[in-house]
Amino acid sequence: VEIDRLLLELFLIFAAAKLAGELFERIRQPPVIGELIVGVILGPHALGAIGESEVHEIFQQLGAIVLLFMVGLDTRLGELRAVGRRALGVGTLGIAMPFLTGLAFVTAIEGSLDEGMFVGAAMVATSVGITARVLADLGVIHEVESRIVLGAAVVDDVWGLLVLAAVSGGTRGDLTALDFAALAIGGIGFVLIVATLGRKVVSAAIPAVTDAKTQASPVAFALAVCLGLSALAGQIGLAAIIGAFLAGMAFSESRPEWDLENQLESVYVLLVPYFFVITGSAVDPSIFTSGSTVLLVAAITGLALVGKLIGCGLGMWGTSKRSVAIVGVGMVPRGEVGIIVASVGLSRDIIDNELYGAIVAMSILTTLIAPPILKALYAGRPTQPRAPGARRGRDVEGIGG
Amino acid sequence: VEIDRLLLELFLIFAAAKLAGELFERIRQPPVIGELIVGVILGPHALGAIGESEVHEIFQQLGAIVLLFMVGLDTRLGELRAVGRRALGVGTLGIAMPFLTGLAFVTAIEGSLDEGMFVGAAMVATSVGITARVLADLGVIHEVESRIVLGAAVVDDVWGLLVLAAVSGGTRGDLTALDFAALAIGGIGFVLIVATLGRKVVSAAIPAVTDAKTQASPVAFALAVCLGLSALAGQIGLAAIIGAFLAGMAFSESRPEWDLENQLESVYVLLVPYFFVITGSAVDPSIFTSGSTVLLVAAITGLALVGKLIGCGLGMWGTSKRSVAIVGVGMVPRGEVGIIVASVGLSRDIIDNELYGAIVAMSILTTLIAPPILKALYAGRPTQPRAPGARRGRDVEGIGG
Repeated sequence: VEIDRLLLELFLIFAAAKLAGELFERIRQPPVIGELIVGVILGPHALGAIGESEVHEIFQQLGAIVLLFMVGLDTRLGELRAVGRRALGVGTLGIAMPFLTGLAFVTAIEGSLDEGMFVGAAMVATSVGITARVLADLGVIHEVESRIVLGAAVVDDVWGLLVLAAVSGGTRGDLTALDFAALAIGGIGFVLIVATLGRKVVSAAIPAVTDAKTQASPVAFALAVCLGLSALAGQIGLAAIIGAFLAGMAFSESRPEWDLENQLESVYVLLVPYFFVITGSAVDPSIFTSGSTVLLVAAITGLALVGKLIGCGLGMWGTSKRSVAIVGVGMVPRGEVGIIVASVGLSRDIIDNELYGAIVAMSILTTLIAPPILKALYAGRPTQPRAPGARRGRDVEGIGG
Repeated sequence: VEIDRLLLELFLIFAAAKLAGELFERIRQPPVIGELIVGVILGPHALGAIGESEVHEIFQQLGAIVLLFMVGLDTRLGELRAVGRRALGVGTLGIAMPFLTGLAFVTAIEGSLDEGMFVGAAMVATSVGITARVLADLGVIHEVESRIVLGAAVVDDVWGLLVLAAVSGGTRGDLTALDFAALAIGGIGFVLIVATLGRKVVSAAIPAVTDAKTQASPVAFALAVCLGLSALAGQIGLAAIIGAFLAGMAFSESRPEWDLENQLESVYVLLVPYFFVITGSAVDPSIFTSGSTVLLVAAITGLALVGKLIGCGLGMWGTSKRSVAIVGVGMVPRGEVGIIVASVGLSRDIIDNELYGAIVAMSILTTLIAPPILKALYAGRPTQPRAPGARRGRDVEGIGG
């Protein structure tokens, strides 16, 4: 039966991810790279051991949601606020530059502004999951650059929502100024309200949750809030992981009582690998057999890389070269967001198959390139592998705008 | 997008399950009943807040898999062996009686032996998840009757596989004696090999797992074995949960080092509710609007109930009336297995829509009936609600054949 087949795939993905992760730990590389490569190898375009279905998509999502929830759990609002202006600049310029370079390049070579707008839009949104995992694995999630990346990713996602809405509605000609204003207010309002009120609501609920008779009620409450805010973010048009990150932050100050980071470790261990393996499985290696496609991929990937580095680098003006590089590279991975935008463009016949393939390749390549560079930027420093089980001190980080 | 919709459903199911569970805890009823009723209310045949898709099926499966793994984790081979002969008798007679009564009744009223065989086959297989949860919630999972039910469920499942194969192949006329022998050897061999060798393999792996650099490697190893044996059982044609139960048993003696019951609590809290809510969502209340269908449902449900009670009761010959009743009622829930058999019959046009609906209703009704009766059979005794967090003593149970 189909369900038996899916269960077998879920097992294969999990086991292969753990083995690859272990191998990469032993050769002192981020395990996330091993998991991504396993995905490419097992994926539908290579061995075909992993298929494509809603089940794969939802496990990919849940993996990213749990990951960002755990990152949020480790992030206090104050820490993010301290880097707020910096994050706003990095997120905003990091959206503007890739959009403009993508738009200009594709409009020039294809002669179509609609096509240029879609490719530009597909090039903007950073997928922060990969970077968050690498920073966590390296044990540097509390450093100031990590905070800026996390904050900028939230800013980036709100901008990404608005750019997609503008391009999508603009090319179809049915987006009114009112629709756009509603989206903008919804996206910005969601982020601001949840970020500021979330922890107060959680605090207010502590007595009721403590009194509840349900098994492990704090864990159940945290999971419900995590799923609820993720789903709500998705309904608004934001990435679900932004809801998950904000949910985690809302619980970041409840930890002494509930010890959620330890309590949720098995959910993390179970679900997070699905995000990386299934993300990797979207790569189609055969795209690199045509010379002109390779050139197109190289051009778009290069522009995506350079656009993000320059945009985010400008946002980091005045800091050290190393900080500029870490934040710039940290914002490079596009992950699944670019692929989603491109598939909307493809389904509306605005972009063709080759351009679609190039965007998918760009999304994956930017995702694969970032982890080793980040790792190299931290090389020489004593690394401290992530272990949510062992709580780390909060007072070791040095946060500043 | 579809994925956003599915994420919203997963949140709704989880939140509603926890609220209903809490409510039922407070009115001193098994929370599982609350979760099943929530499923009926939110299901596609009522409010429609829960749809039907592979995502729902896989979450339903994973919930049952995690549940049975945890039950297995609490079960030592010796405990099961001590009730082995009893469980064999209960499982075997508990298959034979419902099959014969179902076969005789439907052949008599419909005049078709093929139809009778399919309905008989749909009436045999106990779905032990519901009973396991009720027994665990009542804190009686180590009592001798609970052990017999768990052992009998394994026997029952192997027989169920063979009955389904015989009926399915027999009515299609393409099952050779060799195929049947292969199935029988596969099913029985899987159970015997995993039950006896599983814990030795786990013990042998302990040093490697302890040395591994992967985060929370014992948890990752346990989850991999659980998913792997569940998937393998599914590939052989057994219920995936039988693989999960045997996987749990294989780890039952590794616990002192790894504390898996506590470590996996959040996975349990997250996934198990999906099994009950999605199982409940299959109920179509509208079936009870036609008088003749109500009669058919009543007759088939009655035969399913009485057949299981008499068959399992005979297997318990010589024990106390209370033990006979607990084991008999514990084996009554049919859950999803009967529905799967019926849907095969429907897709081959061997049974009609009315009969299919009646089997679905029987599966659900037997599932809904058992928990309150079980609870009543334990009434008066001091209850001890399940808390995997707090490990219970192993030496309190009195096991005997």
